[in-house]
Amino acid sequence: MKNNKNISYRNVKITDRFFSAYQRLAVEVVIPYQEAILNDEVEGAEKSHVFANFQIAAQEKEGAFYGFVFQDSDLYKWLEAVSYSLYLKPDDALLGRADNAIALIGRAQQADGYINTYFTINDQYEKFANLREAHELYCAGHMIEAAVSYYEATGNQNLLAIARKKADLIYDIFINQSKPGYPGHQEIELALMRLYRVFNEEKYLHLAKHFIDERGKSPSYFDEENARLDWFVWGKSNGDNRYNQSHLPVREQREAVGHAVRAVYMYTAMADIANETGDEELYKACEILWASITDRKMYLTGAIGSTSFSEAFTSDYDLPNDTIYGETCASIGLAFFAQKMLNINPDSNYADVIERVLYNSILSGMSLSGTNFFYCNPLEAEPGVSGVTHSYSHVKPSRPKWYACACCPPNIARFLTSLGDYIWAENDSQIFSHLFIGSMMESPAKNIKIELETDYPYQSSLNYHFSGSGLFDFCIRMPDWAKDFSLTLNGERIDILAFQNGYLKIRRKWDDGDVIIVDFPLKVRKIYANDKVRANAGKVAFMRGPLVYCAEECDNGKLQNIFIPRNSEPEILAFDPNLLNGVVPLSAQAIRAKSDEKLYSENPPAESLITVKLIPYYAWANRKEGQMRVWFNERN
Amino acid sequence: MKNNKNISYRNVKITDRFFSAYQRLAVEVVIPYQEAILNDEVEGAEKSHVFANFQIAAQEKEGAFYGFVFQDSDLYKWLEAVSYSLYLKPDDALLGRADNAIALIGRAQQADGYINTYFTINDQYEKFANLREAHELYCAGHMIEAAVSYYEATGNQNLLAIARKKADLIYDIFINQSKPGYPGHQEIELALMRLYRVFNEEKYLHLAKHFIDERGKSPSYFDEENARLDWFVWGKSNGDNRYNQSHLPVREQREAVGHAVRAVYMYTAMADIANETGDEELYKACEILWASITDRKMYLTGAIGSTSFSEAFTSDYDLPNDTIYGETCASIGLAFFAQKMLNINPDSNYADVIERVLYNSILSGMSLSGTNFFYCNPLEAEPGVSGVTHSYSHVKPSRPKWYACACCPPNIARFLTSLGDYIWAENDSQIFSHLFIGSMMESPAKNIKIELETDYPYQSSLNYHFSGSGLFDFCIRMPDWAKDFSLTLNGERIDILAFQNGYLKIRRKWDDGDVIIVDFPLKVRKIYANDKVRANAGKVAFMRGPLVYCAEECDNGKLQNIFIPRNSEPEILAFDPNLLNGVVPLSAQAIRAKSDEKLYSENPPAESLITVKLIPYYAWANRKEGQMRVWFNERN
Repeated sequence: MKNNKNISYRNVKITDRFFSAYQRLAVEVVIPYQEAILNDEVEGAEKSHVFANFQIAAQEKEGAFYGFVFQDSDLYKWLEAVSYSLYLKPDDALLGRADNAIALIGRAQQADGYINTYFTINDQYEKFANLREAHELYCAGHMIEAAVSYYEATGNQNLLAIARKKADLIYDIFINQSKPGYPGHQEIELALMRLYRVFNEEKYLHLAKHFIDERGKSPSYFDEENARLDWFVWGKSNGDNRYNQSHLPVREQREAVGHAVRAVYMYTAMADIANETGDEELYKACEILWASITDRKMYLTGAIGSTSFSEAFTSDYDLPNDTIYGETCASIGLAFFAQKMLNINPDSNYADVIERVLYNSILSGMSLSGTNFFYCNPLEAEPGVSGVTHSYSHVKPSRPKWYACACCPPNIARFLTSLGDYIWAENDSQIFSHLFIGSMMESPAKNIKIELETDYPYQSSLNYHFSGSGLFDFCIRMPDWAKDFSLTLNGERIDILAFQNGYLKIRRKWDDGDVIIVDFPLKVRKIYANDKVRANAGKVAFMRGPLVYCAEECDNGKLQNIFIPRNSEPEILAFDPNLLNGVVPLSAQAIRAKSDEKLYSENPPAESLITVKLIPYYAWANRKEGQMRVWFNERN
Repeated sequence: MKNNKNISYRNVKITDRFFSAYQRLAVEVVIPYQEAILNDEVEGAEKSHVFANFQIAAQEKEGAFYGFVFQDSDLYKWLEAVSYSLYLKPDDALLGRADNAIALIGRAQQADGYINTYFTINDQYEKFANLREAHELYCAGHMIEAAVSYYEATGNQNLLAIARKKADLIYDIFINQSKPGYPGHQEIELALMRLYRVFNEEKYLHLAKHFIDERGKSPSYFDEENARLDWFVWGKSNGDNRYNQSHLPVREQREAVGHAVRAVYMYTAMADIANETGDEELYKACEILWASITDRKMYLTGAIGSTSFSEAFTSDYDLPNDTIYGETCASIGLAFFAQKMLNINPDSNYADVIERVLYNSILSGMSLSGTNFFYCNPLEAEPGVSGVTHSYSHVKPSRPKWYACACCPPNIARFLTSLGDYIWAENDSQIFSHLFIGSMMESPAKNIKIELETDYPYQSSLNYHFSGSGLFDFCIRMPDWAKDFSLTLNGERIDILAFQNGYLKIRRKWDDGDVIIVDFPLKVRKIYANDKVRANAGKVAFMRGPLVYCAEECDNGKLQNIFIPRNSEPEILAFDPNLLNGVVPLSAQAIRAKSDEKLYSENPPAESLITVKLIPYYAWANRKEGQMRVWFNERN
């Protein structure tokens, strides 16, 4: 292991139409909007109070702590996004405000390195005593991530110094003083791996590995903590430690269970540690957990988490479209996990999932305007029920401006601004084109630059231009959905290629001006779910390339009784630049069934032929609120 | 109004194969079993402790109160069932034990008439202060019902004296002393109407009407109570008074909302009061609420309550089959409501619903053995998910022996033993045959006896034999599902009949030996739900006569991907006396779709022809635990 490495976003410039627009939106709209939110300057949005919490903690303001126990993390995640943004588009004013925020964090830090405004302001609570609920290690993790990112993007070590001081305090408590326990919400493990790599400081790897290794040992730390505590944030544990994946030692876990975000954040750290330390047993557990998710617990859009209760995974093939949780953060975490697995073993399976989750359930987490966000990303929305009726109350049919629990919006901001991290990878002898995001990549190690010129996902042609020279394998992912391809090298057609773990592999001494043109035709695909997925029995969905499609009421009227004939062959409509920031819609022949007025009747519904218009799923809920469906009943 | 009246079970002897077996089971098995449960003598069943609570309250035993705040009601409902049972089959030993139980209740009663073991044992709590949660009026209601029933069945007034003392105390507090408020769980209103009728005591009608009239007035009593209280049973109110139907004055309510059992118990009292007092506005509200349920919120089986959250109604047409609540008590309450509506206006619509709910979601509440009970009655069960995964955890795939919250089992016991109440009705000039339950009826007013001889629901022939003589309309319900009929009077075929509100009407001077034979052919019907019912889009279900059918895994293997072709015509199989205590199964040609192994695939599932065996829904979950479905995807 340890051989493969994704190319950093700092060596990748995204240039294509689709994602450069998203990155521009993130830099120009999302980050300033979220800054205003964090400063409580947006009317009609949920209150954040996060800057105020830090000011109160720094004794620069009177007042009480407000928000969730993990409110601090919103500022850290925003600062992480700002870091990437400053790299993508230097901005002195923003840099100054970020420096000010970091200085404030520094002033709120206690002499021993401790910092967490909930505990600093509410100083009656013992620190690191309620690990299950209190999110101190979680917040520390997000601070560390922000610090590493800020340092890497700007060279400024101020936040890094704060974060290291906090990490050193945690190391001292949990390693030197042997305090038992580990995080209730995993996050710091993956962050410590990032911190470890900045200056190659082994202690941070050691601490990350310690938290992973201790987790789930018997007797349960959380059971002991729960019996001992006399205060709770939300209440005593119900004793089901699957919730935070501490029911078993991580190496013995065989099924993705519990809170989906905690799970994928932990799996990310597990894969990263396995890669770094060559721990085969840990890697094996990661492979099994990966299969548990992607073979049996993942929605077509890449969303994960089937129930709002505990924001959790449920049983295999239980994938309800309307009561889904499908948290945006969990989708992002699945991409994190996939990337770490890809770094261990460049198998297209992992990149396929990154693509699936990116183009669908991650992008659906944010409005096209960049100012509204989904926490839950359903595959079926029914206004009047979704967001209203109890079991559906978490599934909003429109994106709110913000959330009291606001983990998702800044997560999208940091993901989109660091998207360059996911496109390319390399090892000693190979370069990988994982995602087809038009971009200019540089490998300093190989002294080579490759530009991918494409209008993906609108069009299928992928044009690779090489600058510099060197002998290596160039590996282009053949997506799971591609049935064939055409490829030319410097204008010459190549029909037979080496194929390695889902990648087309071309080994040669590359030279300045080499050009590869690949095409994986973007046909429309009808998709069927495994027959164990009760929610999708008899149903069909549509995809084109990486994009899942959906129908919305504003295009089609009521959707609840539309059927797609088995022989209906959807058409690809012309790119419409004025629709939803530019999309390629589909249309399909369909049947609308109309019952009589009775609640129950012996008359089969009357049927009429209609044409259904479909749009990419990520773009739903950007027009008039209405029904939405990904899966349609099929007729034959 | 006030003209129509159902014939009392005391004037109706059930004689047919189907329900006399159920009544025998109730008398011989269910009531003794429940007595053992209430005495905590059944191993492996949830603890009841209800007798013990009364002994502790009577200071005849040391100990603490155990159970729900409404635990007393289990004993009262059981005593009500015992009353009917003693009438159906006199039993001196049981009578003695019932008398003992009543004496115990008497000893637990306080001098002022108060009795509620939760409050007597936990004497720190103020009485009648927490009306929203504490169920004192609810328990009083069930005591009154038991007392009236016991008196009517046995002539013994002991329990009646206790109940009147309690009712008089409540009258004194809420009427004489003008204490504001009304029950959090409606029940006493309908019970007071029964008490009122025993000796025609107006004060009880007045009290019932008072609770109905006060309910939902603004400002809200419950809001005031909630602000004032310093102790709660389950916690402060969330402020949504729709939960217990106190969000609006009852006459202004237009939609069935909130806790389904509370709703239908209240509507029952509203209809009964409207009938008694001629209150047209109240009756109008009942009609609107009836339509709200039966036109838009009722399952095919008659079950009501679409969500476990608050055990409540949700929005129109939201009828999920697998996360349904469908509480057995709510089904019974719907029959109560229907019966009161039928007494106001003998329209077959009401009797159709009684039949629907009786043969399906009420009977499904109890195992064929009489010793296991469903609280929730789903139309789709999926072991491994149902009863396990959070949103499905209330929906058990097998009937437990008892429940911590045990409202349903004794409700079935009292319903089955008093089933005679629902079969026949009369007014000055008419006799109605509402339900086709083979029985001998006597109308003392008309000095007439009618015997209905039938093997319904197995066979369709209904043979009415008249004894005595008199001039009146004989009105036979034509079920909503019947498309035609044949009828002979004394052997002579009659093709054209008067038809009144869904009843075939024959006016004549009846005489000894008159015989009517009616036949509503019991064909199999394919049923489609309204296209607004998302859960049943593209689906079909099967009924024969009043019986909804279902498929079980033990007959058919896995059910999740069985499709019924539009042209499949189900066959009626021979009566099988050895299957499920005797049923007429159906069989239907079907398609089994089998996907490939992938979670998502472009390959349509492979299809093979199979035959599906269907059994009556009420009899499901009496064999090996497995999947169950009422609604099937259809193919054409």
